[in-house]
Amino acid sequence: MLKYQQIAIEIEKFIEDHTLQQGDKLPVLEKLMTQFEVSKSTITKSLDLLEKKGVIFQVRGSGIFVRRHKRKGYISLLSNQGFKESLEDFNITTKVIELEVRKPTQEAAHNLNIEPDNDVYYVKRVRYINGQTLCLEESFYNKSIITYLNKEIVSESIFNYIREGLGLKVGFSDLYLRADKLKEEEAKYLGLKKGEPKIYVETIFHLTNGQPFDFSKVSYNYEQSQFFIQANSHFL
Amino acid sequence: MLKYQQIAIEIEKFIEDHTLQQGDKLPVLEKLMTQFEVSKSTITKSLDLLEKKGVIFQVRGSGIFVRRHKRKGYISLLSNQGFKESLEDFNITTKVIELEVRKPTQEAAHNLNIEPDNDVYYVKRVRYINGQTLCLEESFYNKSIITYLNKEIVSESIFNYIREGLGLKVGFSDLYLRADKLKEEEAKYLGLKKGEPKIYVETIFHLTNGQPFDFSKVSYNYEQSQFFIQANSHFL
Repeated sequence: MLKYQQIAIEIEKFIEDHTLQQGDKLPVLEKLMTQFEVSKSTITKSLDLLEKKGVIFQVRGSGIFVRRHKRKGYISLLSNQGFKESLEDFNITTKVIELEVRKPTQEAAHNLNIEPDNDVYYVKRVRYINGQTLCLEESFYNKSIITYLNKEIVSESIFNYIREGLGLKVGFSDLYLRADKLKEEEAKYLGLKKGEPKIYVETIFHLTNGQPFDFSKVSYNYEQSQFFIQANSHFL
Repeated sequence: MLKYQQIAIEIEKFIEDHTLQQGDKLPVLEKLMTQFEVSKSTITKSLDLLEKKGVIFQVRGSGIFVRRHKRKGYISLLSNQGFKESLEDFNITTKVIELEVRKPTQEAAHNLNIEPDNDVYYVKRVRYINGQTLCLEESFYNKSIITYLNKEIVSESIFNYIREGLGLKVGFSDLYLRADKLKEEEAKYLGLKKGEPKIYVETIFHLTNGQPFDFSKVSYNYEQSQFFIQANSHFL
């Protein structure tokens, strides 16, 4: 971890320890430099990172302010780390339905940018939050990148394994989200009725080098799942 | 508009004009500096902005690459500019159901961070995409910030008016999203049946100084609306 990332974590911790609220002002730049014993360029990078993460906002000529958003129990759609993190106060468990090496569907091959005869790991899981069904997930991992998975790994956080076990760097992802009615089989897995609502999210996850490595299709139990997104104003 | 923002738009146009695809490499930094006749610091800021916008991704030591995500017709949940922009190829129209000055609900007062006896503009609208219902929207605008609205304004893009008519700077926003079943009244407005799915989004919009000015509750027609989100890897 780089220095500015570490300082960003410390500033975040400072905000939490002092239970600062949305709109509360942080110490000025010079004071933060002294407090955390770092250079101006480091503290500036830390603050930029925290602004991107939605932890603070900076108002030119006015100061640095706390940005607090969280309603408890919402899944962050921007955090790219699997949702174990946004739901860390909850007990997330996993039931593996299927795990096998196979050829990709046409849709998966297209989204992973691979040939139809390349291999993928296909993983189908139901995830639970505090014992209630949270979602039904189908994922296709490009096997030439994610070279090995087993049942134990996919029972836990696959993304932790990808980062720490395989040493890969998870980069950006593209999410496509809509609502639909549950099909019979989905409803069965989620303990709901056919025709009830679902949130359906397709995600293409890329490494930092831009290679897609995971195409996932997730149907969420509408009674258990809610999402939050922080949008910034850097869009023209 | 600042120089680097203008250059960012030109680079984006360059990508479109050359119909570059995801993963295509852009010219190196030096070449871009020459091509757009700007300094290194300007081009760096332009590229950072484009990376935030999800138009490119940069791989250290390797280059600058095009990031293409768009499936047509998806509403960007990150663009903070109202959705007229993400749906610019479509014909968006608006029917105003209600527009009046009133006291906020408790929920609206809480989210706008105002007192119950402050005034808000309450706006209820149905929006249409190519003649089909897209969503039912209820918004509460803090009247001490959004000092004037009329029927003509709310028939069009309120955000354009806020920026250009009132000269306010729209900053960050917090979105909360879930699926639910349509209630009878909502279904009626959307031309759907009670109990059918909806995407329900609450948003708190802030000025760049952090003041919340709009709390909106939108129920989307699930048949007409799909959303995309680009997530970056700047999260630890």
